[in-house]
Amino acid sequence: MNGFGQKLRFSTFGESHGKAIGCILEGVPAGLYIDEEFIQNELDRRKPGKSEFETARKEDDKVEILSGVFEGKSTGTPIAMIIYNTNQKSRDYSNIKDVFRPGHADFTYFYKYGIRDYRGGGRSSARETAARVAAGAVAKLMLRELDIEILSGICEIDGIRSQKFDYASAKKSIIYALDPDKESEQKDAILKAKGEHDSVGGVCRIVIKGAPKGLGEPLYYKMDAVLADAMMGINAVKAIEIGDGVLSASLKGSQNNDEIRADGFVTNHSGGILGGITNGEDIVMNVYFKPTPSIFKEQKTVTVENREVDFSLKGRHDPCVAVRGTIVCEAMAALVTADMLLLNLGSQMRSLIKYYG
Amino acid sequence: MNGFGQKLRFSTFGESHGKAIGCILEGVPAGLYIDEEFIQNELDRRKPGKSEFETARKEDDKVEILSGVFEGKSTGTPIAMIIYNTNQKSRDYSNIKDVFRPGHADFTYFYKYGIRDYRGGGRSSARETAARVAAGAVAKLMLRELDIEILSGICEIDGIRSQKFDYASAKKSIIYALDPDKESEQKDAILKAKGEHDSVGGVCRIVIKGAPKGLGEPLYYKMDAVLADAMMGINAVKAIEIGDGVLSASLKGSQNNDEIRADGFVTNHSGGILGGITNGEDIVMNVYFKPTPSIFKEQKTVTVENREVDFSLKGRHDPCVAVRGTIVCEAMAALVTADMLLLNLGSQMRSLIKYYG
Amino acid sequence: MNGFGQKLRFSTFGESHGKAIGCILEGVPAGLYIDEEFIQNELDRRKPGKSEFETARKEDDKVEILSGVFEGKSTGTPIAMIIYNTNQKSRDYSNIKDVFRPGHADFTYFYKYGIRDYRGGGRSSARETAARVAAGAVAKLMLRELDIEILSGICEIDGIRSQKFDYASAKKSIIYALDPDKESEQKDAILKAKGEHDSVGGVCRIVIKGAPKGLGEPLYYKMDAVLADAMMGINAVKAIEIGDGVLSASLKGSQNNDEIRADGFVTNHSGGILGGITNGEDIVMNVYFKPTPSIFKEQKTVTVENREVDFSLKGRHDPCVAVRGTIVCEAMAALVTADMLLLNLGSQMRSLIKYYG
Amino acid sequence: MNGFGQKLRFSTFGESHGKAIGCILEGVPAGLYIDEEFIQNELDRRKPGKSEFETARKEDDKVEILSGVFEGKSTGTPIAMIIYNTNQKSRDYSNIKDVFRPGHADFTYFYKYGIRDYRGGGRSSARETAARVAAGAVAKLMLRELDIEILSGICEIDGIRSQKFDYASAKKSIIYALDPDKESEQKDAILKAKGEHDSVGGVCRIVIKGAPKGLGEPLYYKMDAVLADAMMGINAVKAIEIGDGVLSASLKGSQNNDEIRADGFVTNHSGGILGGITNGEDIVMNVYFKPTPSIFKEQKTVTVENREVDFSLKGRHDPCVAVRGTIVCEAMAALVTADMLLLNLGSQMRSLIKYYG
Repeated sequence: MNGFGQKLRFSTFGESHGKAIGCILEGVPAGLYIDEEFIQNELDRRKPGKSEFETARKEDDKVEILSGVFEGKSTGTPIAMIIYNTNQKSRDYSNIKDVFRPGHADFTYFYKYGIRDYRGGGRSSARETAARVAAGAVAKLMLRELDIEILSGICEIDGIRSQKFDYASAKKSIIYALDPDKESEQKDAILKAKGEHDSVGGVCRIVIKGAPKGLGEPLYYKMDAVLADAMMGINAVKAIEIGDGVLSASLKGSQNNDEIRADGFVTNHSGGILGGITNGEDIVMNVYFKPTPSIFKEQKTVTVENREVDFSLKGRHDPCVAVRGTIVCEAMAALVTADMLLLNLGSQMRSLIKYYG
Repeated sequence: MNGFGQKLRFSTFGESHGKAIGCILEGVPAGLYIDEEFIQNELDRRKPGKSEFETARKEDDKVEILSGVFEGKSTGTPIAMIIYNTNQKSRDYSNIKDVFRPGHADFTYFYKYGIRDYRGGGRSSARETAARVAAGAVAKLMLRELDIEILSGICEIDGIRSQKFDYASAKKSIIYALDPDKESEQKDAILKAKGEHDSVGGVCRIVIKGAPKGLGEPLYYKMDAVLADAMMGINAVKAIEIGDGVLSASLKGSQNNDEIRADGFVTNHSGGILGGITNGEDIVMNVYFKPTPSIFKEQKTVTVENREVDFSLKGRHDPCVAVRGTIVCEAMAALVTADMLLLNLGSQMRSLIKYYG
Repeated sequence: MNGFGQKLRFSTFGESHGKAIGCILEGVPAGLYIDEEFIQNELDRRKPGKSEFETARKEDDKVEILSGVFEGKSTGTPIAMIIYNTNQKSRDYSNIKDVFRPGHADFTYFYKYGIRDYRGGGRSSARETAARVAAGAVAKLMLRELDIEILSGICEIDGIRSQKFDYASAKKSIIYALDPDKESEQKDAILKAKGEHDSVGGVCRIVIKGAPKGLGEPLYYKMDAVLADAMMGINAVKAIEIGDGVLSASLKGSQNNDEIRADGFVTNHSGGILGGITNGEDIVMNVYFKPTPSIFKEQKTVTVENREVDFSLKGRHDPCVAVRGTIVCEAMAALVTADMLLLNLGSQMRSLIKYYG
Repeated sequence: MNGFGQKLRFSTFGESHGKAIGCILEGVPAGLYIDEEFIQNELDRRKPGKSEFETARKEDDKVEILSGVFEGKSTGTPIAMIIYNTNQKSRDYSNIKDVFRPGHADFTYFYKYGIRDYRGGGRSSARETAARVAAGAVAKLMLRELDIEILSGICEIDGIRSQKFDYASAKKSIIYALDPDKESEQKDAILKAKGEHDSVGGVCRIVIKGAPKGLGEPLYYKMDAVLADAMMGINAVKAIEIGDGVLSASLKGSQNNDEIRADGFVTNHSGGILGGITNGEDIVMNVYFKPTPSIFKEQKTVTVENREVDFSLKGRHDPCVAVRGTIVCEAMAALVTADMLLLNLGSQMRSLIKYYG
């Protein structure tokens, strides 16, 4: 199953160390101005090798649009985008050819498919998320026309929590930190772990601002459920919460309910979603990333022949995948929101009559 | 969007106070013994009105199979099941006819569909989950043939956490408590909140035991992502974590990675899923339920004409939806697992050749 | 795979001689007046036993709406409809218990599922089409609001072709004959075959009038392709043509192209569809039904143990399935059109902006 | 909607005069030997410019595999293939910039999307079918491992019918003619029409040999219905029949039923499908192509501003699209069959138990 979305739907292809990665995005309404610079800029935000907080693998991540755009505008037909891999350097991976790296998908891909593509994780590598960011950038162009915005940032690294959520600040931060007062502490934690041949986990916060009331298609394509699907499917994500999330499970109903006044909700414990449908408030979620499984410390593992070995990984890896993961979360949030905007069009008979009448 | 699953797929119908609820379950392999007593027993575990910890609404929840079964076995054709509502008592809901209940989906359904079915939440009511439990029971019958089991229980109520996970104990507990030493404290918390016209949240723990390696269809139908979708789509769920989940975001890679020995994984921080595919270990997840939004305390809200009112709900409600929610989580876990078992059949060319050769 | 449609989607359940048949229809926009009398009337048009041209099996085909409608209007939630089987009379089928009836699906169901539901064809019986007609009736109610109409009739029976297409006349004809001058000849052909313990084939013509330009979602959900899918999936259908269809393959381009003038197309060889998208002209198709496979003449066949037998079927059967098939074709055409109307809503960015702006 | 298939699913991208066309094919089981030479050879069979019976547009149609294959074998991950357009020559199309070509999709795309990609039909051009042929070639590699073969050929051109179906002969014929005795007459008809600035229609016959009993997923993913969908979706197809098809509508039941003996069916009027499921006989279908709409004769049409004009098309076009269409039909038949083989894996509980037990 290689596609995501119902009306706005994308499929991706490509492996970490293959020729290219890319995507086909279908369902983009015709007549959208396709700002290629914006799309490239989104890819640049995610691309590796920008700082010491990221993997040393350098990729230009130049995206090329192959179809679906004519004279600068979407035509309503599938938009294909391709990104050639330029820095595969597959010799880096020779030492892991027969070894299952702990915390990685090597083991499960091997048992599922009976084949081992040992080149840097193959399809399971987070490199594929560049294609999501490309698709997400087009979704953001759609949202921009409707004054909907996706904000994000890092709210926790190695247990160090943000006290404030300053999205403007996160945009400028090299680690997308939401709290400028915690940024240097969070940076230090990353570098310290890196120095110790280890890695750290982190948490991203994503906010969708300006989404209209009524998005989400219950009962089995609810806004929150689809966001959970989208986020949990990102590499290294282990938990997702909407609104107060985990905390709400220890609250009383009288604390957790959001009262309503004529001008809207008084609080937003719900995170903007009730019964799987948006209520017009900010849609808020936290996405929990495990620490990068690629560490250089010696670990116990087995080979494909199930022989036990002690093993030290080499190569180039992000010491904290949550950092670049933030941009991927944004992309997925944009894709989900745009899909829901399209799906919602037919929810009332009166709109249908108005459209065709 | 009213269906869930790809190969094993179910659709449900029905409102809280309509004539009946039910489901169509398609994709059940032919030749499965359909144990009707087991299915009814599963519904009995979820049905309301069994104790003071649940809503006083009484429903027999007698399930009737309408199709897809012949001489006690599945025929490969869709299995339809129906449950008539016997205790609608819709007069209970007259006082909420024009009022949006805080924390409920009344508000969002009204804005999405432009219509108000005020009878107890209509389609958004958790009553629909009985149909999921019926479908899930059939999925469990499939799993039973393959020695796969779904375990569950309450691991937290009102912030009171279980210290042990005793699934046998949970099975016998009226509130499905995993820790018999915490059970009475948890019960007291529910009754106390109920006495104060309030409600409490809770957390369910779900374990899938015996699932083979290789389940999950990356990249966009991963085992963990689909479980997240399935769980987040249940009424009142606000967060989901797989394995160490939230905690893993504050761990180091060296702490969170599961080392591997010839006889399997040394630890199970991952919760049995790597790269979206099962690794043969227990699949473990926690599902966080918010407190029941239906409380009898006075709350501020607005009417459908956006007039501000102070409002006290009447009626019959669960003081803690997590309790009966556990059974729904089990059902969804069973449905996801059975679907994945079917989808995985074609992952290797050698199996295809063996099957048809 | 038990559902049809993308945005307007229905699933059906039930066997010929089970308790009930029915459907769940999802995606109906909220606020549509659900005219139950109209739905029942559509079922009455298809129901068996109305005349000597049909099977003697009598079924009331009383449809009951179980959900999705409140105070006479659709709520946007799934509409479930149920029809109880009242005249199963399963003893009729005892003589075929172990025998594969030639021309029937007994053989293929047995080899696919390894199980034999010998009761009148089980799931493969045309009885299931009553559920399609119920779903199609709701789709027609949607179309009615948009001044789109589905017309149909029999244009050929046993090789006797209509010279005119009089849809008003067809509506009143007991065999839905389009040409009143050929009707008695066509009736005679049916009765003659029936008298000889045989059956006849026939052709239905379906026209969708008033559909707007722009319906169809290329490249893989084209209007014509989906209609072909919908029609070929009806029991006993063996061919489908759009517009000039078969004939167009022997025409020159200059004969087959439809020239265009300011007020529309000069001719309609295309049958209202170009490139898989409607062009605003009538959508015209012919659907070819094979003769009923259930005949009383002696035939050679085998048993489930592959033992050769000579076999004479007993029971009650339509001597010409095309007659009642017409109503099923109408229903499927309505469902496809309504689905396409919903899917088309998001094809231009300007509509999206207008809707949400 | 830009994908086809459920378990084996492909999506395509690209326009006639864009940079490239291509596809993503997902669901190919791991471990299939990917014979690139075979894939290229399939593309060569479809590619334009091979003879005077085809368009003069020359395209190398060199296909490049971008992903999903490692060390010569499929890995179970999506296979992306790309074909760069080398001979767009978009100046050819300048004279049609504002004019709707009769019989073409220009008109309908414009009204659907509100945008005009006038470059040779854009997305609606049959050029896209090269991507289908690439995907179909991989499907054929799967089928080859299971001894299933797709045969095809032209059985009618301009009303000149084949009397025999010699598939070996068709393979060597430049127009894929099934009847070597009719080939030169059929060729003459094409050239005569071409000389008169006109075009001709034709009919392809497709046979699937060696498919096992039991393929097809009723009731809404039947083998015949999905083949009808697949074929009708090919450019210029206007009709599809299975087995005796159109003819069967004028037969008696006693003529059309296929009697059964211990060693199989005595006849094959059904075309190998009963109740939407294969019965082990050859699956036979005829696909009717309209004459190429692109003709050089003067035609009446309108501009995008609805101004009436007389118009003579220039450019390079196939005088008979059915010829190269045959190869596309083969590809679609292969894709449908391979998908059905995968879907059928889970139809019996005993297989599931055997696989996982």
